[in-house]
Amino acid sequence: MSIVLGANQYGKAENRVVRIYRDTPRHEIRDLNVSSSLRGDFEDAHVTGDQAKVLPTDTQKNTAFAYAKEHGVTSPEDYAIALGTHFLDAAPAAAGAQIKVEEYVWDRIVVDGEGHDHSFVRRGTETRTAVITVDGRGPEQQVWVVSGITDLVVLKSTGSEFKGFLKDEYTTLKETDDRIMATSLTARWRHAGTSAERDTDWNASYDDIRRILLAGFATTHSRALQETLHVMGKNVLEAHPEVEEIKFSAPNKHHFLVDLAPFHLENSGEVFIAADRPYGLIEAALSRDDSSEPGLAWQGVPGFL
Amino acid sequence: MSIVLGANQYGKAENRVVRIYRDTPRHEIRDLNVSSSLRGDFEDAHVTGDQAKVLPTDTQKNTAFAYAKEHGVTSPEDYAIALGTHFLDAAPAAAGAQIKVEEYVWDRIVVDGEGHDHSFVRRGTETRTAVITVDGRGPEQQVWVVSGITDLVVLKSTGSEFKGFLKDEYTTLKETDDRIMATSLTARWRHAGTSAERDTDWNASYDDIRRILLAGFATTHSRALQETLHVMGKNVLEAHPEVEEIKFSAPNKHHFLVDLAPFHLENSGEVFIAADRPYGLIEAALSRDDSSEPGLAWQGVPGFL
Amino acid sequence: MSIVLGANQYGKAENRVVRIYRDTPRHEIRDLNVSSSLRGDFEDAHVTGDQAKVLPTDTQKNTAFAYAKEHGVTSPEDYAIALGTHFLDAAPAAAGAQIKVEEYVWDRIVVDGEGHDHSFVRRGTETRTAVITVDGRGPEQQVWVVSGITDLVVLKSTGSEFKGFLKDEYTTLKETDDRIMATSLTARWRHAGTSAERDTDWNASYDDIRRILLAGFATTHSRALQETLHVMGKNVLEAHPEVEEIKFSAPNKHHFLVDLAPFHLENSGEVFIAADRPYGLIEAALSRDDSSEPGLAWQGVPGFL
Amino acid sequence: MSIVLGANQYGKAENRVVRIYRDTPRHEIRDLNVSSSLRGDFEDAHVTGDQAKVLPTDTQKNTAFAYAKEHGVTSPEDYAIALGTHFLDAAPAAAGAQIKVEEYVWDRIVVDGEGHDHSFVRRGTETRTAVITVDGRGPEQQVWVVSGITDLVVLKSTGSEFKGFLKDEYTTLKETDDRIMATSLTARWRHAGTSAERDTDWNASYDDIRRILLAGFATTHSRALQETLHVMGKNVLEAHPEVEEIKFSAPNKHHFLVDLAPFHLENSGEVFIAADRPYGLIEAALSRDDSSEPGLAWQGVPGFL
Repeated sequence: MSIVLGANQYGKAENRVVRIYRDTPRHEIRDLNVSSSLRGDFEDAHVTGDQAKVLPTDTQKNTAFAYAKEHGVTSPEDYAIALGTHFLDAAPAAAGAQIKVEEYVWDRIVVDGEGHDHSFVRRGTETRTAVITVDGRGPEQQVWVVSGITDLVVLKSTGSEFKGFLKDEYTTLKETDDRIMATSLTARWRHAGTSAERDTDWNASYDDIRRILLAGFATTHSRALQETLHVMGKNVLEAHPEVEEIKFSAPNKHHFLVDLAPFHLENSGEVFIAADRPYGLIEAALSRDDSSEPGLAWQGVPGFL
Repeated sequence: MSIVLGANQYGKAENRVVRIYRDTPRHEIRDLNVSSSLRGDFEDAHVTGDQAKVLPTDTQKNTAFAYAKEHGVTSPEDYAIALGTHFLDAAPAAAGAQIKVEEYVWDRIVVDGEGHDHSFVRRGTETRTAVITVDGRGPEQQVWVVSGITDLVVLKSTGSEFKGFLKDEYTTLKETDDRIMATSLTARWRHAGTSAERDTDWNASYDDIRRILLAGFATTHSRALQETLHVMGKNVLEAHPEVEEIKFSAPNKHHFLVDLAPFHLENSGEVFIAADRPYGLIEAALSRDDSSEPGLAWQGVPGFL
Repeated sequence: MSIVLGANQYGKAENRVVRIYRDTPRHEIRDLNVSSSLRGDFEDAHVTGDQAKVLPTDTQKNTAFAYAKEHGVTSPEDYAIALGTHFLDAAPAAAGAQIKVEEYVWDRIVVDGEGHDHSFVRRGTETRTAVITVDGRGPEQQVWVVSGITDLVVLKSTGSEFKGFLKDEYTTLKETDDRIMATSLTARWRHAGTSAERDTDWNASYDDIRRILLAGFATTHSRALQETLHVMGKNVLEAHPEVEEIKFSAPNKHHFLVDLAPFHLENSGEVFIAADRPYGLIEAALSRDDSSEPGLAWQGVPGFL
Repeated sequence: MSIVLGANQYGKAENRVVRIYRDTPRHEIRDLNVSSSLRGDFEDAHVTGDQAKVLPTDTQKNTAFAYAKEHGVTSPEDYAIALGTHFLDAAPAAAGAQIKVEEYVWDRIVVDGEGHDHSFVRRGTETRTAVITVDGRGPEQQVWVVSGITDLVVLKSTGSEFKGFLKDEYTTLKETDDRIMATSLTARWRHAGTSAERDTDWNASYDDIRRILLAGFATTHSRALQETLHVMGKNVLEAHPEVEEIKFSAPNKHHFLVDLAPFHLENSGEVFIAADRPYGLIEAALSRDDSSEPGLAWQGVPGFL
């Protein structure tokens, strides 16, 4: 019997890179959390402790910060592609690299009706995400781009029902025509193509998909969270042919109607308790019947799908 | 020697009360985290285990939910005053009560340029707060109201310096003319008066004070976070004579300029690392020279001040 | 073009099930966090909102609690196998199910040198884990068992070096012969076999593997965290032939030597700052050359591997 | 009208100081989270932005690390007294200083029945705490010491009842003779004396008080959490005459008996759901009838008391 090293990767996680553009008095800010990892022929480091092929995680960190200046950050996707393809050059033993970026969004502080030049306030709980996976070098190199959003917290106070479900001897849930539906949405979508060179306007694409997701949630009469997600994903795929696939992970954040009858009060959908745990969890993937194969795009991306 | 019971209180913390107003198709939502506590003559429960005077924390919870319907939630302050004064009636052994409310803010989802009737998205990281302290009954009853905001995350990419400070043998910090200044602000302000009956427009007051705080942060050239807080507080006290006192707790969330010289790159205020810990922590209270005494208003409110 | 539903699953996450055994005055406690999910033919729920095949997540929750009594909890693995196979019977549309369990460990409070009968104190930060994946019914049914541990926080104050690594133009890290090595370990190991009926002593297996992991960390002179993990995994696989595969995810929790030279103090490995972010992240899988195929065992288990 | 600066303080929070003692091959580790703050005549910094009297928080950080070497860390209390009194010398404008320390406890990893020389595993969720408050200089200087423990998670599976409580129209709670009682205890105790020079064995004192608290929790038949805390505190004050006062903050972490009747199962105290929110919250202070005045000991210490 002998022991075999299987899949492995290493890198530096959660570099908090803040990039200020200050070429004019009207500053721009990009606020990122960047994680990088390398995959490939690093068996020596594991088996004999020999680090000769290992580009240190500290160097990966330095590069993440240097690239914020050298390459710049016009979007999480563009920056991550530059960083990920660079690591294939820097570490000859690497067969691939993955860059994960979270971006925190800031709004300008409004003073006398105008957005301030260099003062900002954090917007929302939501985070924009990008995961870039690079495989190989030269003409064979492939680059997959998965964009996304996480912690988008939304709630409908009506327009949601849940009934007609399967019942067994452990079922006590009552059917309902009208409930609160709330979730903290994670969505990720894979862009077409595997070239490092793209002319996609990543920011415009993100903004429009976010708009479509919110509108779909708002306007769909929901017979289940599954159905709502399906409509949201369908709308994205129909409006964005360059998106090949979209995946959702959506906790059903339960809001239970409080029983006020003991206090001789009616409660027709007015007073709820927001529960922490347990919560429902709905996950689903949508694509087109002619979507391309995902390759390595989803490997290492959180979520079962 | 004998053992003496000193200060004590008990209650139910973090009731997640969600109140929907659905009298018209255009719903309103108030999303609260409510904690109540009672103080007074509860020595028997501690010393002999006799619960005869103890209004259970479970009952306090029930009441928090029932009052969301019976009294309603037009503002955290108004709801908390009603709840707090009720407990003095319900628990004869109580000498006082304190109600703490956090409110999470929701915006309407925008569909085709219009805010949706019943679909909402969580706004920002910030939380509106209110702490109501009630003491006594009948004509002697006093009610203090402390409103506030917490987790208001703001950042200036310039307009902040730090120099001319005291130096000793452990000082290595360089002086700077231009740095990022960022904080996650907690501010709390005490309203004048101790009557349960008020005609204050709590929501308008909150909105305007929030606006003043943000504008003060944005427009003050800062020689220290202390100075910025001072201007922000001064502006609030000057514009709102009904505010007697304001207190700040502000972590100085350090953004360190990354040294890119080893990579032959200039970094003139463009690339920063956002640090987690340690962080500076600045706390200060401001009032007018003729402000009223705070009484019990601040007892039990987080913060040293 | 038509839209296609891909992989999907749904369930109830984080049921906090506490089971007390009180058949004798000496109670036993099992404290679990249980998540269940079903996979299969649930397309109607997504596409048309028809819930006829959907066993509600609320029913899954009820079953998790009922099974703590009906089946009992002698180990997370045994309980999860019972729960997971049950769901295949309860939901005809399900093709498979996955049960994830976290167990929090409690020690007896020691009074006068003896463990108390019914009073307990939470041990450590570590959590025992189990992920059970069930696929199919009847004779074709397969059940994979992945046991594990997470948040096992360990530190070596010497016996760790890092040198001889690859350098490029972004490398500034100094080589070191002696550093602190610390991690918050996640390890997961797959048990041989796919039968629901097992006579494995899950608790004894877990205790011994935990012991081996800790001893391997303690006694290995480390030239990289990769090497330490490799020895730990090798030791497990050699001692436990019933374990087919083991996977690690280990943040390198950096402890940086503080530069005390400006204060005319020597610091020969005595004063460190424990950093939060960024951190290194090492992930690796080990198996035997004749290990069985993993099948669906790892699908949906957190980690890239 | 003029604006008045009230109470204020500033400092550096959460310095993660790790001190290794390596004089022999058998290392010792002290793992601290240290926060310092200064109070006094810092009005110029607030009002005019003049930092001439301000010892930077960065210097406070440097000093916290340097003192881990220069003074050493035999206990959180001893280290914090040295650091706090130093700051009064370093910052002439300071009238007082407060040092807060959290200590994380590590056990030696056991290998072949022996604790390892330099490999450690984090113990428990509990944290040892110390808050030192210094006021004044020279012969008038006063130093208060408050030691404590936080996040000590304990649970009794029987020996706890709750009945005979006050009922009103919002009361629905049933009385019970037997329930789970669980809490995550915070206790803080004030030591006698205000001299900086002490010959207290801080570590022995802490260990014994922790032992008394646990034993009191375990062996008290509880008619309310209030009563349990009272016994625990009484036991400490009776055994430790040098402790003047003890304060508790104890969430009542509810474990609700699950209703299994719909599934035709009995549940006589066997299956519970551990709830997150809301939770009861009990706070109480105990002292002796001849205890000294607390002075500034509790100012700025979290908790209402």
